[in-house]
Amino acid sequence: MIPESSLKRIVIAGGGFGGMELAKALRNKAYQVVLIDKNNYHTFQPLLYQVATGGLEPDSVAFPLRKVFHGAENIIFRMAEIKSVNLEEKTIVTTIGNVTFDFLVIATGSTSNFFNNRDLEYNAMTLKTVSDALNIRSLVLQNLEAALVADKKDLDALLNIVVVGAGPTGVEVAGALAEFRTHVLPNDYPELNRQAVNIYIIESDKKVLGNMSEQASDKALLFLKKLGVIPMLNVKLESYDGNIAVLSDKTAIPTKTLIWSAGVKGLVPEGLPKNVVGAGARLTINNFCQLNGFESVFAIGDVALFDSQANPKGLPMVAPVAMQQAKSVANNFIRMNKGLPPLPFKYFDKGSMATVGRNKAVVDLAFIRFQGFIAWLVWMAVHLMTLVGFRNKTIVFINWFWNYISYDRAVRLIIRPFNRK
Amino acid sequence: MIPESSLKRIVIAGGGFGGMELAKALRNKAYQVVLIDKNNYHTFQPLLYQVATGGLEPDSVAFPLRKVFHGAENIIFRMAEIKSVNLEEKTIVTTIGNVTFDFLVIATGSTSNFFNNRDLEYNAMTLKTVSDALNIRSLVLQNLEAALVADKKDLDALLNIVVVGAGPTGVEVAGALAEFRTHVLPNDYPELNRQAVNIYIIESDKKVLGNMSEQASDKALLFLKKLGVIPMLNVKLESYDGNIAVLSDKTAIPTKTLIWSAGVKGLVPEGLPKNVVGAGARLTINNFCQLNGFESVFAIGDVALFDSQANPKGLPMVAPVAMQQAKSVANNFIRMNKGLPPLPFKYFDKGSMATVGRNKAVVDLAFIRFQGFIAWLVWMAVHLMTLVGFRNKTIVFINWFWNYISYDRAVRLIIRPFNRK
Repeated sequence: MIPESSLKRIVIAGGGFGGMELAKALRNKAYQVVLIDKNNYHTFQPLLYQVATGGLEPDSVAFPLRKVFHGAENIIFRMAEIKSVNLEEKTIVTTIGNVTFDFLVIATGSTSNFFNNRDLEYNAMTLKTVSDALNIRSLVLQNLEAALVADKKDLDALLNIVVVGAGPTGVEVAGALAEFRTHVLPNDYPELNRQAVNIYIIESDKKVLGNMSEQASDKALLFLKKLGVIPMLNVKLESYDGNIAVLSDKTAIPTKTLIWSAGVKGLVPEGLPKNVVGAGARLTINNFCQLNGFESVFAIGDVALFDSQANPKGLPMVAPVAMQQAKSVANNFIRMNKGLPPLPFKYFDKGSMATVGRNKAVVDLAFIRFQGFIAWLVWMAVHLMTLVGFRNKTIVFINWFWNYISYDRAVRLIIRPFNRK
Repeated sequence: MIPESSLKRIVIAGGGFGGMELAKALRNKAYQVVLIDKNNYHTFQPLLYQVATGGLEPDSVAFPLRKVFHGAENIIFRMAEIKSVNLEEKTIVTTIGNVTFDFLVIATGSTSNFFNNRDLEYNAMTLKTVSDALNIRSLVLQNLEAALVADKKDLDALLNIVVVGAGPTGVEVAGALAEFRTHVLPNDYPELNRQAVNIYIIESDKKVLGNMSEQASDKALLFLKKLGVIPMLNVKLESYDGNIAVLSDKTAIPTKTLIWSAGVKGLVPEGLPKNVVGAGARLTINNFCQLNGFESVFAIGDVALFDSQANPKGLPMVAPVAMQQAKSVANNFIRMNKGLPPLPFKYFDKGSMATVGRNKAVVDLAFIRFQGFIAWLVWMAVHLMTLVGFRNKTIVFINWFWNYISYDRAVRLIIRPFNRK
């Protein structure tokens, strides 16, 4: 199933920012690299919220993984789901059979954490995959269509949208939905009362963008309010049954659209010993990104809890951490072949940013913080540059240009309606 | 559900080329127009085959219907499925309730005709909707992924592709698949033997593109052969069980991908009297596109059988017929309000064209026929011009330019895997 090779085999589980970067860094090196992902594409998660809100096509924020590795003879891609890992036998069990490894790098990322609330898990929308984004897009539009012919009593639930969690994803999706309401809704649905469409953002912390500077948080809150989003801070979601969101202060918001971005956890494959799973269901790793106690098993990115005195909660679950860890691990694999000792991983924090809407973004860098139009331009430039592929860059740029001059969100087709399973 | 109005109400069933054009022509005229479609978008069917073969995003060959009618106060769009028509009560029954009409225009188009072969209907892929196109794209790619890890005995069925019917759709999809095999497959799947991927086109007639000139047919056949498609003429599909296609000459071709483009029929709503349904399940209409025997009910486009001595089989099921009929019907509605008698519909045949691949198209006009590179440029120009929306035109142009210079088909993501229900 995997061609035999005289080279040592590195299996990479997951083709996200970490897994893809690692495989790229091992291109044409003296290892056989087997990259496994359940999708045949890499997802550029930071722009998923624009797919969910009609600003971009799904195909421009994803990239075929096979294309990344054209001509790299030592890299083998397999589309498969990973069922479990057997560390004793150095084998992973997948939907296409067993794959043995000499080294394993777990780069499986993270998934939504519903904190064991089954009702919430069943009824909430999430925004981690391309399918999630398409489902949100369909649901929002389907509810607007339904609102046109609904009984008055059902109208509030169809029109209200609740975003839970005011991290970057929550803030970005709430802002984009507010812009959709302002610029698209009145033209597309003149029969609906725009004022009746409320967009709430719920956050248990006392501020939005809790991981950014005070300055960025304050400004982002101001931007959200300017766009007409209703922020509700210091309050938690208590329950959601698909029709009514009840908050910890007993506020009840009727809504059929609740987007959950308030918690993530590591997506740990089955079969690993319990003692390597730490806070947030993430795998505890040492300074070389090795799974504690297992020299030939590594973990990088969201699924990894990089354990050091400086970061008791691990590093942030963002793309730069995954990519930097990928480069460090790749470099150590190359050093190993040269008989050199591994170098410990050091995270270089380049800063963080988030966008709330048109001309409205916040940027925290090491020595400078800024917000507004320039921040928004920087945000766009950074995201355009990091998008994979020239075609995707071009298409996204044209869409952004078009959206900016037309105030439109052109990609609002309900192609495969969302149906709860 | 539909706002009351003092104007006479025209209900248009279907937002395809006919229905959309008709509603556009009635913009701000003295009628209340209710346009009903099961999708919230218009589909540009002539380019669906490029979505199916990874050349274009689904969102660039579809256009939100609401956007077409911005600011047109007399036009109301409703997303609904039409269940049946009650001509006595002048009402249509839909998934969102009953809608009454003063005039009804049936523009429901056509659907695949499997000639009561249930096995074929269940197992074959079709190419009439955006979902169909995405399903073909997913299935072709899923089968290639599966081929990498399949037993040798299953390999042929996974790699062979059979297209049945050599009309424009069949020819275009077979040609595009052949180009995918030549330019994408060797790079993406170096482990697969390209020679083992066979693309067949099956046609019961003695030539391909039977409705075009001899010259165009001959050249298209030559183009198909050049691209490595295996044409099988004068032969019919006898059965297909999802694994083996058996032809009338008893040839058996193992394949898990059979694309059916050999028959269409009118998509006639329930509840109409049997005597108005003619050849090909199409509605027989008079010279004014009125349903025979019903003055206030019209039919246009694929679903209509325009009855005249000159066209015993009706007019071709193509966009120009639907659009010209729409304009004629709209004009007669406007004349009616002025107390003028209706004018009979006359079809102006502008010619026809089809593309087989890169630099390879055939064009039949009234006074000139040409094939090859110039025909291909003309084909592209005509399709770009008729695409709805500036954004779509731009994105399609960039994709085509990109595909041309890179020989790539960039949109090859399996976003929602195809699963037979």
